[in-house]
Amino acid sequence: MKSPLCYLVAARQSEIAELEQLRSACSLVTCVSELIHELQKERGLSNLWLASGGQQGAPALAAQMRAVDDAIGMVRLALDAQELPVQPARHAALLYNAIACLLQGLASLPALRSGIGSLALTLQESTAAFVRLIAACLALVFEAADSACDPDVSRLLVALFHFMQGKELAGQERATGAAAFASGVNDEQRRRHWLHLIDSQEQCFQVFTEFAPAAMHELWLGRCEQGPDMSAIERLRRVACTAQADDGLDAGLGERWFAACSLRLDAMHEVEVLMARELALLCAGRLELAQTALQALQDREHATEETEGLAFFAVDAPDSLPRTTAAYASCAAFGPQLERSIRSLVQEQSQRLLAMQAEIDRARTALVERKTIERAKGMLMHLRQISESDAHKLLRQTAMNQNRRLLDVAQAVLSTVELLPP
Amino acid sequence: MKSPLCYLVAARQSEIAELEQLRSACSLVTCVSELIHELQKERGLSNLWLASGGQQGAPALAAQMRAVDDAIGMVRLALDAQELPVQPARHAALLYNAIACLLQGLASLPALRSGIGSLALTLQESTAAFVRLIAACLALVFEAADSACDPDVSRLLVALFHFMQGKELAGQERATGAAAFASGVNDEQRRRHWLHLIDSQEQCFQVFTEFAPAAMHELWLGRCEQGPDMSAIERLRRVACTAQADDGLDAGLGERWFAACSLRLDAMHEVEVLMARELALLCAGRLELAQTALQALQDREHATEETEGLAFFAVDAPDSLPRTTAAYASCAAFGPQLERSIRSLVQEQSQRLLAMQAEIDRARTALVERKTIERAKGMLMHLRQISESDAHKLLRQTAMNQNRRLLDVAQAVLSTVELLPP
Repeated sequence: MKSPLCYLVAARQSEIAELEQLRSACSLVTCVSELIHELQKERGLSNLWLASGGQQGAPALAAQMRAVDDAIGMVRLALDAQELPVQPARHAALLYNAIACLLQGLASLPALRSGIGSLALTLQESTAAFVRLIAACLALVFEAADSACDPDVSRLLVALFHFMQGKELAGQERATGAAAFASGVNDEQRRRHWLHLIDSQEQCFQVFTEFAPAAMHELWLGRCEQGPDMSAIERLRRVACTAQADDGLDAGLGERWFAACSLRLDAMHEVEVLMARELALLCAGRLELAQTALQALQDREHATEETEGLAFFAVDAPDSLPRTTAAYASCAAFGPQLERSIRSLVQEQSQRLLAMQAEIDRARTALVERKTIERAKGMLMHLRQISESDAHKLLRQTAMNQNRRLLDVAQAVLSTVELLPP
Repeated sequence: MKSPLCYLVAARQSEIAELEQLRSACSLVTCVSELIHELQKERGLSNLWLASGGQQGAPALAAQMRAVDDAIGMVRLALDAQELPVQPARHAALLYNAIACLLQGLASLPALRSGIGSLALTLQESTAAFVRLIAACLALVFEAADSACDPDVSRLLVALFHFMQGKELAGQERATGAAAFASGVNDEQRRRHWLHLIDSQEQCFQVFTEFAPAAMHELWLGRCEQGPDMSAIERLRRVACTAQADDGLDAGLGERWFAACSLRLDAMHEVEVLMARELALLCAGRLELAQTALQALQDREHATEETEGLAFFAVDAPDSLPRTTAAYASCAAFGPQLERSIRSLVQEQSQRLLAMQAEIDRARTALVERKTIERAKGMLMHLRQISESDAHKLLRQTAMNQNRRLLDVAQAVLSTVELLPP
């Protein structure tokens, strides 16, 4: 019969396996974050090119395509290096599905680029295609690093995911602004979309602030939110978004806007990379602790194997207890004492696991909410061929009309999607 | 490079592994449910014995102990038959921990029985010990069968877990009533506890009703809730709970109460076993569907391996495309068509997985809530050495005082437990 200790050991080993999986996911997160960063830049430069009717930024765009290709190469290497273990877990199915979606998206990049190069695509079509591709990258990061092994890890993950989402909205804002300045006008629809992007990214950064470690938060304030780029951006936001429809926009400001936004996004990217590194460190620290605890359990298991077996035998089936004096003596001498100490081990581990689980459940509420809403938006964008901000507006409007929470509407959208016409 | 299809296959395989794990957990659920049923009876008979000062029910109690021992033997066989795979999943750590707790609890059963046999334990102590032991059984069922692989499965699990919880409360009610009738009085404290048990079990059965398939619900109504036992129970409830403190209770009603409750619990046990069987059937059906879908994916993967490879090569790195006419022709002829059909496969799978996940998240909210509150109660019972109903009252009172949800208070209790003195 297996003893309680042997199950305590198995529990610890599973915890360790989860931490190891997360630590190895951190490198994938880092290179996908790199790819997102480069794709965001290609999106912005493509918009400059399209909005200027093929007049602006051709060399920069060509160089940027090569940077994206390099980043794709790194992601592919990282994916190919990973095995595909079949795991009896929802998590695994969702991760593999996200990888399939991303590969599918990357396969369409050459066609997208040729449409942009020949000016065959509109600015809206190009932006929407890049937004979808980056959303697929983000979905992969979310699934790959989604782990619930430790409350601190969960909090850092919530912070990181919201930061990446916020950065992507800031990237969409750069592209939107680039298009507006390059075209020389900022129509009402674009103005509303722009304000929506500002608003949504601030919401993301607020969640980041709530869950990030203090050092990360300060870094973010110092590098991004209180830097000189931010005042330039705020000034240009004001100029563009308060202009009346018939006021022209100074096309010359486009490059300045793009440069200021790019500096801010680069700084964000640094914070993002540091957070991924912090996550890897945190996992390593937790792993070390868990391994020490496992060692202690295993030592105990080894030391008590014999008496333990007897003690269990004794309580299990008193009638069949070996009737030698020695066996009785060992049970009497070590049995109850051992049993007590193992009982306290079981209780300690139980309290620790349940306390952690409660903390994790709390942090993950924010995560599940974010994921569900993003997934529902993605689904609507795909099904109705609308933009991210229109999808968001649609969800919010429906929630207001039905007096329900945004989350509930998002869940309802996802769960009825199979009923809709393809 | 791995193709999107190969990730779709891995996703399906992980889903299948999860379904298989759940299907094999169903047999464990069935034998633990058996053990719970026998322990509930031993608790009730022990209460009759203790409350009557060792006058009533000795032969029945002795026979019942043997029935419990047999059930323990079956659970141990089932546990020993299971391997202990180390899985990078929280789920695995919690399951192993729950097994360790149950084994620890079972090891204390002989001491409990000898305390009851010699009348050394009070009725409250005996009841509390059995309640803890059964709670450990329930926790094991919850962790073993906790799976989120399919919305219908999730709903059935929510129904089953709440049903088992409700049945345990009905079992506690049987023991409480048995003690009251046997002692000939129903004091105010016991009366309040009794009413609490009635109320809580009704709440559990309400959730069961909400999530159970219609057939199960009707079975439950027909066998348990609208049967003749239930009117006998309701009549005896009324007699006992409306009696004034100085009215005596007719001790002769004790055996009638016990018999009526036992018939009801037996009927519930049947429903429970049928639900576990239904769960196994549902898993088998889902498995069959998933395996057919997997086969189709694998056939496709096999058939398209070559052209697929070329198509990916083509979009991946146009410069290094093999410049043979044949290769070009195959890409042109099959490439785009294949790519389209694989894209639609990816989209289908994506929509299916996300729709399922949203449904699952919704059903699981009920489950997480139940689990968290039960865990917090267990923790309070253990730490403060109080009864289940006092723990429940404490949580509810705190929630009311602080104007927070019961769930939030339960989470807070669990996550601060490490701060409390041991």
